[in-house]
Amino acid sequence: MPLINGFAAHAAGAELLAYKYEAGDLKQNEVEIAITHCGICRSDIHLIDNDWGISQYPFIPGHEIVGKITDIGSAVLGLNAGDRVGVGWQAGSCGHCEWCLQGEENLCADSQGTCVHRNGGYAERVRVNARFVVALPDGLESERTAPLLCAGVTVYNPLRRHGINPSSRVGVIGIGGLGHLALQFARVFGAEVTAFSASPAKEGEARSLGAHHFVNTRESKTLKNLGGCFDLILSTINNDQDWNANIAALRPTGALCFLGVPPAPPAVSIAPLVMGQKAITGSPIGSPRMLAEMLDVAARHKIQAMTELFPMSKVNDALNKVRKNHLRYRAVLAN
Amino acid sequence: MPLINGFAAHAAGAELLAYKYEAGDLKQNEVEIAITHCGICRSDIHLIDNDWGISQYPFIPGHEIVGKITDIGSAVLGLNAGDRVGVGWQAGSCGHCEWCLQGEENLCADSQGTCVHRNGGYAERVRVNARFVVALPDGLESERTAPLLCAGVTVYNPLRRHGINPSSRVGVIGIGGLGHLALQFARVFGAEVTAFSASPAKEGEARSLGAHHFVNTRESKTLKNLGGCFDLILSTINNDQDWNANIAALRPTGALCFLGVPPAPPAVSIAPLVMGQKAITGSPIGSPRMLAEMLDVAARHKIQAMTELFPMSKVNDALNKVRKNHLRYRAVLAN
Repeated sequence: MPLINGFAAHAAGAELLAYKYEAGDLKQNEVEIAITHCGICRSDIHLIDNDWGISQYPFIPGHEIVGKITDIGSAVLGLNAGDRVGVGWQAGSCGHCEWCLQGEENLCADSQGTCVHRNGGYAERVRVNARFVVALPDGLESERTAPLLCAGVTVYNPLRRHGINPSSRVGVIGIGGLGHLALQFARVFGAEVTAFSASPAKEGEARSLGAHHFVNTRESKTLKNLGGCFDLILSTINNDQDWNANIAALRPTGALCFLGVPPAPPAVSIAPLVMGQKAITGSPIGSPRMLAEMLDVAARHKIQAMTELFPMSKVNDALNKVRKNHLRYRAVLAN
Repeated sequence: MPLINGFAAHAAGAELLAYKYEAGDLKQNEVEIAITHCGICRSDIHLIDNDWGISQYPFIPGHEIVGKITDIGSAVLGLNAGDRVGVGWQAGSCGHCEWCLQGEENLCADSQGTCVHRNGGYAERVRVNARFVVALPDGLESERTAPLLCAGVTVYNPLRRHGINPSSRVGVIGIGGLGHLALQFARVFGAEVTAFSASPAKEGEARSLGAHHFVNTRESKTLKNLGGCFDLILSTINNDQDWNANIAALRPTGALCFLGVPPAPPAVSIAPLVMGQKAITGSPIGSPRMLAEMLDVAARHKIQAMTELFPMSKVNDALNKVRKNHLRYRAVLAN
């Protein structure tokens, strides 16, 4: 039986160790990918640490995968051996519910994560249902595209769903792995883009990535002066904020969209939602169709992640640097 | 100078007293309406009691007005003396902001309430900017239509904005002034309609008004069994609820829409919003255009409020009955 080598978590919070597993027979709807690059997403660390209580050890993390197809199941359509492809957070769904039928597999109740209860991309190879494998357009560097497969589509999806256009004003809270991509995408939608960050040192970089304005979130007055400004505020952080001040900063019909989850459920003042027809919402990754669209847009508009490259064997060094928030903005492992 | 007689609040929470005010010259964009009926909305009581801190005494409450046009300004278009018309919550807006320009005057920052800092409909006559006066279709009884002008459009607007259709599942929390209209409107959109109420005695009436299902909200298990059911839940109440259980009862992309404001800001769990792309939102009244559309739909589908009629002189009796929640479902004053 074919063996796949990778690096697995064996206990909550532990360093990853070299690990191999039997891949078995390739299923007819699967492709096997020889991984060249895999981004490190904070969700990998949540899984390693069992923060969500769903981890089963040992498992190989990694869900921002770029590589080449080396083997292909008999029922796979539209992909060929040798194609350069990507895989993101999702690796499976039921295939027959209303969401799957309408191409919104990311909303399927049986959505399966690429490295949840299975082995992901910190490895030499991976096998995935071809429905969740996307061909990479030429012109995108593999290293700097890997993070788009999760972080990129996660910020792109709500920009599209909320109808962002050249008349829109978009705020992005948190300039990190997601936020630095959100600035770039919001800019190519033509929006007026404001970066919100607690790190004033990031202002120059935020502006070079696409922000027209920069707000230091430690200066609460600044936010108050922005009342009624924004059509959409994307929150990419996992920290607490004055969320009601952010709601006040929305225009009528505007939305505060969470991509990260704050540690405590915010106490939300309802009256401003009623008076201004505003919304609080959230967004999970994106559909396979949205993933492909996002990559096309990224290729045409030269959107790439800012990355730091680590050899796969140095995965623990890379994870430590991500844990310490010392990375601008995304670690990528390479075989 | 012409005098208008009505009943005014002179201090927070006080009984209304007979009151007259000078109407002055009719402005060119105004009509004068001889009031035949005026509904009592809970917002009137909030204004009488100064619950929102914006009341200026004395003032005549009332913003669910039906009557006949008796005088008409020189610049008024599309209305004529003798027309039977209605006026709702809104009586003015700036007229030139983006929201006014696109016919969404209800979102204008300078929106003016019919009985906020001015005299409303518990009176013999009222003068209003014609932009906010709507002609009543034939076939609607004046008494049972008055409550549609505020409560009706408040429930109709979110059904339209959320694209409710015959495949939709709609929940209505609270079967009172707003809720008993929401059931009727949701039903004519073709939706599968569920009434949520803490009063099991209302089940029969809720079903006769349009509900396919009835959920007793005091039985928390029932709500849990409804996980992932609803496209839209309209909350018409001003009480606390297990809002996170309501969010759990939404399908992916579903929305919990507040029409009433809970006493305390709810602590909202964000993860379910992210995972299910769900939204918490709110909705204020409706635009003049939506008001007219709602009345047309009501006329075609025989939607009317259930009312109890009081002579205008008995306004304090009517208010007391509304305060005690003894009305099913709306008090209407008549001259």
